[in-house]
Order: sequence, then C-alpha cells, then structure tokens
Amino acid sequence: MPIPTPNLYPDFNIIRLSHVVFGVSDLAKSRHFYVDTLGLQVTDEDDNRIYLRAMEERGHHCLVLEKSDSATIKSLSFKVFDEGELDKAHDWFKKNGHPVEWVERPYQGRTLRTTDCFDVPIELYFKMDRLAPIHQQYALYKGVKPLRIDHFNLFSPDVDEAVAFYNQLGFRVTEYTEDEESGKLWAAWTHRKGGVHDMAFTNGRGPRLHHTAFWVPTPLNIIDLCDLMATTGYVDNIERGPGRHGISNAFFLYILDPDGHRIEIYCSDYQTVDPDLEAIKWDLKDPQRQTLWGAAAPRSWFEHGSEFENLDPRDAQLNATPIVAP
Amino acid sequence: MPIPTPNLYPDFNIIRLSHVVFGVSDLAKSRHFYVDTLGLQVTDEDDNRIYLRAMEERGHHCLVLEKSDSATIKSLSFKVFDEGELDKAHDWFKKNGHPVEWVERPYQGRTLRTTDCFDVPIELYFKMDRLAPIHQQYALYKGVKPLRIDHFNLFSPDVDEAVAFYNQLGFRVTEYTEDEESGKLWAAWTHRKGGVHDMAFTNGRGPRLHHTAFWVPTPLNIIDLCDLMATTGYVDNIERGPGRHGISNAFFLYILDPDGHRIEIYCSDYQTVDPDLEAIKWDLKDPQRQTLWGAAAPRSWFEHGSEFENLDPRDAQLNATPIVAP
Amino acid sequence: MPIPTPNLYPDFNIIRLSHVVFGVSDLAKSRHFYVDTLGLQVTDEDDNRIYLRAMEERGHHCLVLEKSDSATIKSLSFKVFDEGELDKAHDWFKKNGHPVEWVERPYQGRTLRTTDCFDVPIELYFKMDRLAPIHQQYALYKGVKPLRIDHFNLFSPDVDEAVAFYNQLGFRVTEYTEDEESGKLWAAWTHRKGGVHDMAFTNGRGPRLHHTAFWVPTPLNIIDLCDLMATTGYVDNIERGPGRHGISNAFFLYILDPDGHRIEIYCSDYQTVDPDLEAIKWDLKDPQRQTLWGAAAPRSWFEHGSEFENLDPRDAQLNATPIVAP
Amino acid sequence: MPIPTPNLYPDFNIIRLSHVVFGVSDLAKSRHFYVDTLGLQVTDEDDNRIYLRAMEERGHHCLVLEKSDSATIKSLSFKVFDEGELDKAHDWFKKNGHPVEWVERPYQGRTLRTTDCFDVPIELYFKMDRLAPIHQQYALYKGVKPLRIDHFNLFSPDVDEAVAFYNQLGFRVTEYTEDEESGKLWAAWTHRKGGVHDMAFTNGRGPRLHHTAFWVPTPLNIIDLCDLMATTGYVDNIERGPGRHGISNAFFLYILDPDGHRIEIYCSDYQTVDPDLEAIKWDLKDPQRQTLWGAAAPRSWFEHGSEFENLDPRDAQLNATPIVAP
Ligand SMILES: [Ca+2]
Ligand SMILES: [Fe+2]
Ligand SMILES: [Fe+2]
Ligand SMILES: [Fe+2]
Ligand SMILES: [Fe+2]
Repeated sequence: MPIPTPNLYPDFNIIRLSHVVFGVSDLAKSRHFYVDTLGLQVTDEDDNRIYLRAMEERGHHCLVLEKSDSATIKSLSFKVFDEGELDKAHDWFKKNGHPVEWVERPYQGRTLRTTDCFDVPIELYFKMDRLAPIHQQYALYKGVKPLRIDHFNLFSPDVDEAVAFYNQLGFRVTEYTEDEESGKLWAAWTHRKGGVHDMAFTNGRGPRLHHTAFWVPTPLNIIDLCDLMATTGYVDNIERGPGRHGISNAFFLYILDPDGHRIEIYCSDYQTVDPDLEAIKWDLKDPQRQTLWGAAAPRSWFEHGSEFENLDPRDAQLNATPIVAP
Repeated sequence: MPIPTPNLYPDFNIIRLSHVVFGVSDLAKSRHFYVDTLGLQVTDEDDNRIYLRAMEERGHHCLVLEKSDSATIKSLSFKVFDEGELDKAHDWFKKNGHPVEWVERPYQGRTLRTTDCFDVPIELYFKMDRLAPIHQQYALYKGVKPLRIDHFNLFSPDVDEAVAFYNQLGFRVTEYTEDEESGKLWAAWTHRKGGVHDMAFTNGRGPRLHHTAFWVPTPLNIIDLCDLMATTGYVDNIERGPGRHGISNAFFLYILDPDGHRIEIYCSDYQTVDPDLEAIKWDLKDPQRQTLWGAAAPRSWFEHGSEFENLDPRDAQLNATPIVAP
Repeated sequence: MPIPTPNLYPDFNIIRLSHVVFGVSDLAKSRHFYVDTLGLQVTDEDDNRIYLRAMEERGHHCLVLEKSDSATIKSLSFKVFDEGELDKAHDWFKKNGHPVEWVERPYQGRTLRTTDCFDVPIELYFKMDRLAPIHQQYALYKGVKPLRIDHFNLFSPDVDEAVAFYNQLGFRVTEYTEDEESGKLWAAWTHRKGGVHDMAFTNGRGPRLHHTAFWVPTPLNIIDLCDLMATTGYVDNIERGPGRHGISNAFFLYILDPDGHRIEIYCSDYQTVDPDLEAIKWDLKDPQRQTLWGAAAPRSWFEHGSEFENLDPRDAQLNATPIVAP
Repeated sequence: MPIPTPNLYPDFNIIRLSHVVFGVSDLAKSRHFYVDTLGLQVTDEDDNRIYLRAMEERGHHCLVLEKSDSATIKSLSFKVFDEGELDKAHDWFKKNGHPVEWVERPYQGRTLRTTDCFDVPIELYFKMDRLAPIHQQYALYKGVKPLRIDHFNLFSPDVDEAVAFYNQLGFRVTEYTEDEESGKLWAAWTHRKGGVHDMAFTNGRGPRLHHTAFWVPTPLNIIDLCDLMATTGYVDNIERGPGRHGISNAFFLYILDPDGHRIEIYCSDYQTVDPDLEAIKWDLKDPQRQTLWGAAAPRSWFEHGSEFENLDPRDAQLNATPIVAP
C-alpha cells in the first residue's frame, strides 16, 4: 500500500508552512525580481537580508533573501499552534534522533532548529512579529499580486520515506503518483493547513528544494505576470506554463529567480480539511498528471533544484521516468 | 472588550459547516434555481427532497431542498473531526442544558441534533457518504460554477451572546462590527475551517437565517451569473451586488431563491489558520464596511431572513442603525 | 419612425472620435486621478496642460487637461480619413451655416474648428504626431489599464435633432431608446469606427458632456479600479456600477474626476461594421435598459454633466422620466 | 521595402471576412466539436450541411460544415459594403484575369465566386439573412463563448505576392515578419474591419488554410475551453497554447477539429482603424514573435494545414526557418 494511514493526532501541531530562507548572490537583483516584479512587500532589509511578506499575510515574513556565497536554501520554516507545541516538538525530534537546537531568529520568538528524515534543515516557531493588515491597501498591489506563501516542493531520494516521516508529523496526503511497476511513490502532496499541500515530494536527486509556491487571486494575475516578465528582461526565467495541473487542479506557472531558485505561482486548488478526505491516485504515465491540458514539463523541471546549505544530495532510489517534453 | 479570547482548545472539534436543509414550496422551481441556474449537482432526489453538492465537494450533500408547507430552515449542520468528537459534543450540549437527540439522516452516520443558545436547530455528524470527485469533470460545470458551501450568516437578537456561545465551540472571530455608542457587537464573523467564517451573526430580529454562501472560482463567475439570471427570468432575484465587501475583503453577490431564501455567491477571502490572528474591527457607521466601494445595502437586506422551523424570532436588543440605501 | 436611414456615403469621412479637452481647476489633482489612478500615460505636460494617451494608442493624445477657471469642456475632436476630407468637411460645415475656422493645435496638423447642431465645439484633423507603440511595455500598465478612448456621451436637449445631424456625418445608430408616448428618441448610440458608439446622446438639459469613455481589457480591471479608488481616497468618486449595460451589452463603471467630469470605464461591446446592422430598440421604461441586472442609475447620473465653454445649455424638449434609483 | 503602401481607395469595398465552408468527414463528430464543445449556435442543418453562427453575429452563418469525401476548404467568403460593390468587384476580378461566376448560396443574396492570386476560391456577397440578436441570451452561451469569426490565416508559397494582391483589395498590413537575409516577407497580418487582421499569410507550402480564428470575451474563456477539452476526450486536439502572441498582442489557443482543420481561439488585439497606422515589423528569429512569453510553436503548427478543394499547393519560395519547439 503506497500511502500510510493519516496520523490525525500527531504528537505536536504544525499549522502550516511559514517561510523559507534563500541564499542569493546579489540582493539588488533578487529585490528587483521579488519586489518590483512579483510584488512581494519588503518588511525589513539591510545589507545582508531582505524580509518579505505577501499581501494577506500578517506575519513578518514568508521569504528571507540572504546574501550568500552559495545559492543554497538555509532552512524551511513552519508555524506551530502554540508555544507549548514547540516543547513537544523538541522532545519528539530529540527522541527520534534528530539534532535539536533553539536558535535566535529576528522577528520570531523561540525557534527550534532540527532536521527531517533526509537532514533537511527545518525550523519551528510559534511567535512571529505581527504586522498591520495591508490586504485592503490596493495601491500596494503589483506584479502578480501575491497573497500568501502556499507550499514547498522537495526533490526526494525516496518519496515513500519522506511521506512516512511527514505523516508522523500529521501531514496528510491529498494526491499522489505511483510507479505502477515498482509500486513505489513517485510523488506526493501533503497538507496541514487545509489546502492541497504544504509540502510535496518529487522523486529525484535530493534532498533539494524543487520550488516554493505563492498563491495569487486568479489565473489572470498569472497571465499578467507572464506579460510583465516577458517585457522586462525575464523572458528566459519563465520555465513552464501557464497551465492547469492535473494533480491539485490548480492553475500554475513556474519561474526561476536570478539564482535559479524556482518559484511557482499558483491558484485555484481545493479545500481539504476533512480528515476522511480520500487521496487521489495518479499514474506516472498519465500525460494529464502534470498538465491537465496535456503539455509535458521540460527536462529542466525534472532535473534542476536548489541544494540545501551544507547538505549533499544523493540519487533517487527509484529510476522510473516521467513524461518529459521532447 | 467586545470579543472574547479565542477558545483554542474547545471540548470537541467541529471542523467546518457542512450543510443546510431548506423548506421549499415547489421542488421543481427550486431545482430550476439551484441546479439549472446556479449549477449545483444533484446527488439524489425523490418527490420530497433534492440533495445537492458543489463541484469540489466529496461529501454527499451541502444543501437539501425539502418540500414543505413553510419556507423555513430545518437545521444547520456541521462536520466534526471524528466519531469520538460526537460523543464529546453530546455530553457538552447535555451538560449545558441543550436538548440532545441522535437522529437518522440519509447518507450520514450518527447524527446529533441539538440547539445553539437561541434554540437554532443544529446537527453534528462525522460520517457522510463520500462520492467520487467531479471537480475535473469540466463538462458538468455550469451557472456560477459553485465549488463548495462556505458559510452561514444568522440574524441574531444578541450578537454578543451568539459570539460567546460559538466561542465556546471554538469558533474564532476574524472580523467584527461594534456599535460605538453601546459598545456592543453589531455583527461578527467566526470560523473553524481556516477562512474568514463558517458562521456570521448580524444584529436583527432573530434567530433567523440571513444567508447561506457558496464559494466560486473568480469574480467573473459572479458576473456570468448576473448575466444569466438577468436574462432567464430571475432579474428580480438579484438583491445586492456584485461588489467587494469591506469586511472579509471578499467579492460577493446576494440573490434570493424562489422561496426567498437568501444565497450569497462569494470568493476571494483570506486564510485564517493562525491561532493568533488578530480580529479586525469595523465601525457600524463606516460606509465601506458593507461594500468597500461605498454602495449601501438595500433595506431588504437588513430586514428579510428565513425563519427556522417552529422557532419564533424575537426583536434584537440593540437598536443601532446601519447605513441603508435610500 | 424614430431613427433615420443610415447615411452610408457621407460628404466626408470621419473615422473615429479622437480626444477631448477638459478644463480642470488643479492640474496636480487631475494628474493624480488620470495618471496615478486610472493609468493614462503622460505624453507631454507643462504648467497649463497635460497630454495623455491610453496604452494601445499611437496618436499623441486622447485627453488634454487644461488648467482653467471653469471646469468646462473646450472641444470634442475627431480624426478624418485623410487630409482631403478636412477640406470637404470645411465646405460642408460652411455650406450648412456652421462657423468654420482653421486652428493651431500642438502635435496636430491642420485642424478645423466648427460646431454641431447645438453649437458644441467640435474639431476635426487628420494628422497627429504618432508615437512609438507601448502596448507591449507591460511595466507601464497600471490602474485600470486603459487601452483607448471609446466614446463621448452628450446630454442633448433634442435627441432626434442630434441624431439627424450626426446621421448626415455618417454616424450610424446601433441602439436607441424611444419614449413610447411621444414617439421621440430619449437616447441613441451612434458609431463611425465599428463599435457600438463613438457618440451617444441622452435626453436632458444640454448640450453638456455626460461622459467620456475608455476601453479596458476585461471586467476584472474594472473591479481592480474600484478596489484601488475605494482605498486611495476616491470612494466618493465612484458614482454608478460596476454592472452590465442592457444597451450595448458592455460592462461599465462610472466615476467622477476631481472637477466632476464623468468618466466611464467600459469593455465588451460588439462589432458593428456591417452597414446593414439593424439598430436595437429599447423602451424607456425597461428596467434592464440601463443595467441588464436591474439596478437603476442614481439621480445624479441623469442630472449632472459638464458644460461646454461659453455655451449655455437649455432644457430638454422631452419630459419623459427614466427609472431612477430611489 | 517589404510592405507596399496601403491602398486606401480600393476599387471596391470589402468590409470584413465573413465565413468559411469546411469539408468534413462526419457531421456528427464535427457538430460535437463545434456546437457542444466550442459553443457555436446552429442556424440550420440537414444531412449535408450544418450552418453555424457565433453569439454576437446577426448574419446567418460564419462557418458551414459540409459533409465531404475530402477534408478540404470549399471557399473563403467576404462581405462587401453594398450591392453595387459586388458589380465593381466582378469587373475588377474579370479585368485582372480571374475567373468570375455568380453562384447560388443558401441564405445569401448575389454571390460572386472568384479566386485570389494563388487560385484560392473566394466568394463575395453583400446580403445574408439577418437573424435576431442572441448576444443577451446568456443561457445559450457555452464552451468558449465564441462571439464572432475574427480572421483567416493562410499558408502562402509567396507572402510578398499575397500581400501585394490583397493590398490591391484594400487589406492594410498591421504587422509583419521579415526574413533578414532575403529581405522577403515571412508572414503578414492584413485587415479591413479595424482589428489586427481579417487575413494573415504565413510562408509555407500553399495555398492552404492554416487556421480560422474566433473571438472570445477574455483569456479566462480560453482557459475554460482547455479544461473542457482536456476532460471530454479532446486533449490531443489542443495543439498550441494558451499564450500571448508577440505579433498582435492577442491571447491565443490553437486547436484541431476532428478532421484536422485548425481553429484559433483569440482575444485582446487592438484597434486599427487609423489609415496612417504604422505596421509593426518583427524579425523571424525573434523568439517572442510567436509567443511573447518565449515558448516556441510545435513543428506541426508550421507544417500542417487544410488544402483547398481541387487546388494543389506548391512549396514556398522562401526557405527561411522559424524557431520550432525541440
Ligand atoms: Ca478573469
Ligand atoms: Fe507546487
Ligand atoms: Fe456572507
Ligand atoms: Fe457610455
Ligand atoms: Fe491567427
């Protein structure tokens, strides 16, 4: 059986993905991409870091750009339900053999740094500085009108193992792709917050971050972004789409930032709060799995990803081949 | 202080609103409205009842039309997190002096019938027949392309009392309107599922059901519905909108069904899963509260509602007057 | 018979409306409205005038803001098919007893100033400075993303007379409203360029300019403008809409500039190039005439307009009453 | 110089493209595609032909499906400005050595059948049965909500020659692609009705019909059609797109009907009524020429087309190669 029984009562309560720290080589270039083009809002910046939030978020940041020699990912962060959950998390990770450390993070309360099953650096916190709402300051909206961070997608050397691990943390599978021959998972989408996913896993050399997704109001905002990027020097940064995913039924666009970190612009998936929601299974060879309209993803989409800082990826166990654009 | 501290650990776990039973005088007329015009899908029907679901729902029904001598509301229903939560709910309601009864409902498992603080008939269940997904059967989409039931809004004779009651059940306030003079709540929006609301309360003769809302993909679907209703004999059933709410920031349209039950078509609110989300306060006299663009709601919107079966409404305690269209 | 036989072979060839000169009391305030909020592009400006074009236009200006003691309209301008048509127009207006004058206009070639049947100042030209296309410079798009000027609508003291006059100039009626009792026209829409209208006439104290309309890509841009105006101090400048017109079937919004000049934001009408297109007749008492969805226009919409410079309006002949919002 | 001076005073006045007759192998299959899926309206049908119109058209047909042994194109038709223009056209074609014939066509008045410079069968008429408007019967809208026929695109063995010929007929070039090496035209877009084109020409084995385009309200209707086709057995009929054209700036989708006739769904180009509109030049090697967002067209798009009945195509003179998807 490819997917585990959902763990409805995990030992601690992660409520959602929260933010990610990207190492970037040139803050000015990244700022032009994320602020002037995508339309994220700067909440703080100095010579080393830019903190960003999307339009409906009240937490201080959903994306941190950190000047860095390597374009690596520093950590993936998650918000827990209250302060006490942090302690429960600390104990769980420690008990299960993961390194645990309380770290200082600007604009955040107590923050627990640990790792997942593949040594991916993850951080958990409850308190982050709360900012005044700006979602009705329409003069601030620009670019793709990003509303909120939606999910992470990771290349995983063993998707079954990733799903088993995050299932312990209460991430519930909503859709998945199975390799018919081996019976192994090729990809899976798992959620905490009631959408199709907070975390997805794709078979491939990993762990690496495949992409970080932002939610936008409608497909027309995605078309607007294509027009804007195509006429402001970013035409080569449009990697795939726009289109409708088979999996998740969402409307998507994949773009690459100046350092090659992949961003998905995403809207229109569905509500998944029911604990008895049945996961939807897709066959790896179904051409509508990736794009409902039939267009295959380009090879780069299956091969390129961002490494985590100081963490060497390894090849995937599963050698099954998806449909790649010719 | 007008709103209570959120109860993050209620005695039992309601995950979301689920469905409503409308008494209707003519099933054929109601079917023409809900199925042929709005685009809800029939999941079962006989001479007495039509069961409907929206496009992304897998539960058997979100709306039940029941042939009835009176156009009253039979019950409001909620889904709980698992079977055990039903027993906890049973005990809680009983302990707190509400009538409790296990009732039989087609397509549902054990169902607890009880009442809220104003004797509104509410029903809780965990299990409902699960149907195959149809959200990617695009040939079935029509009308306004309804995706899911979103919320109930009730006229309440005392909004402070309603909020206090539902707060015990874990409904968290996201936005509210205060009457500056009395310091009392005039309206409040409260959620369980992570959107702006599952349940809202509006000051007025009550308890009565003000409206039931359905979520749709984009504002353009709402424009499409206006065009359709305006040219198929339903022009007088368009009561208010379309427009953008100040409260919730959602795009809305209010329409009346053949029996006068009010339906809101709704999209574009925001995610509220953070337990530390700060509620947004509005002044009753703010003209942008109702409609961000300044248009006042018509008098009927403040006065007309659907009564619950065998339940006489009473006048509201608070006599404050909202802004009404001239 | 209320509308004349179309004159398919007028004595000279006007191809389309072109631009209008608004007297404004405060150029900075007007600039904030038209440039920063609506999104028109400045093509020239000095202490007395701001020249503007919309995104797909290559002519130098579609709107000129002129600092003025009175918020009056200085002229309505039209482009003719070639230089020779100007001379034909000159002779025609002179022969028909209208004052004719060759005037100097910046960025334009020879310009004929004359009047219509109610002494409205109109100007005709063929040559205007042509600018490089900007319609694919998507970084310039903002506000409502105005694409082009679409039409003028005038209050006319006698719509039959206005239609008879413009019919001589080849303006063809596409839709019209008749007062059933008197058999007189209450309003008419007439075109040269192949859309529903270049010039419309509404019964009322006149001549006055009722509004100037700009074409935008989709209804969603109009919703965006409502959101923007509502949150940047312009909520009281939103007069009517958004909605679907019965007449023209277009999606619309009416707003007022800082001097009270009315602007319509408009999209989605239909192609009318067929010379044998049958005009569509509407009854003045049809509630869907104004707004297909049934909402009546407010009283201000029937009463307020911009006077032309040095031209006193007179009361309308026809006293029929349209449906006005209560 | 690659494009000729526009002929502003052609010998007769064609106002717009009108309709096309497709030979189809199976009327039922074609009906399912054009009526049930795209949403065109049947205006007449029998065992041999189906006549169709789009939602805002009042002429009887814009597309005729004719049962046929070969999936060829029977004729391209154009509407002239009045009856007298037909006689002028007759004389012009005869004088210039083209075969001329008055033919009987159902629902049309006098119809002149002749040929263009490559023997493509073209038909001209003024009168066609006019039908009652249906553009406000919103219950009839379905599929992609086609509003009107927009343009033909032909493979031409010599685009310079095609442009020279149609320029004599008053078709004005709005945009064009030049092969830098040879200085010859690789493609051109020419119009009569005030949009980017009625007729476009693409270098290639020809004459063949590359595609017929229909205008729809917004890009979202095109997304809706993709979703519908992808889930009703037509996923393989989606050939290219959706995307934004560089040339014309329109939003597009290319699909293939059951016989392989290519249809473009199209919206959002710009107004071109100015006689002094400057044509926009593109380089054949500009990757944003085809798709502003950079995606190359597939090979089939450059190679596949529909032949005209009894007319053998020949290879193109120009051997320049466009950018083709790998
Ligand atoms: Ca849209
Ligand atoms: Fe994703
Ligand atoms: Fe509501
Ligand atoms: Fe207008
Ligand atoms: Fe085309």
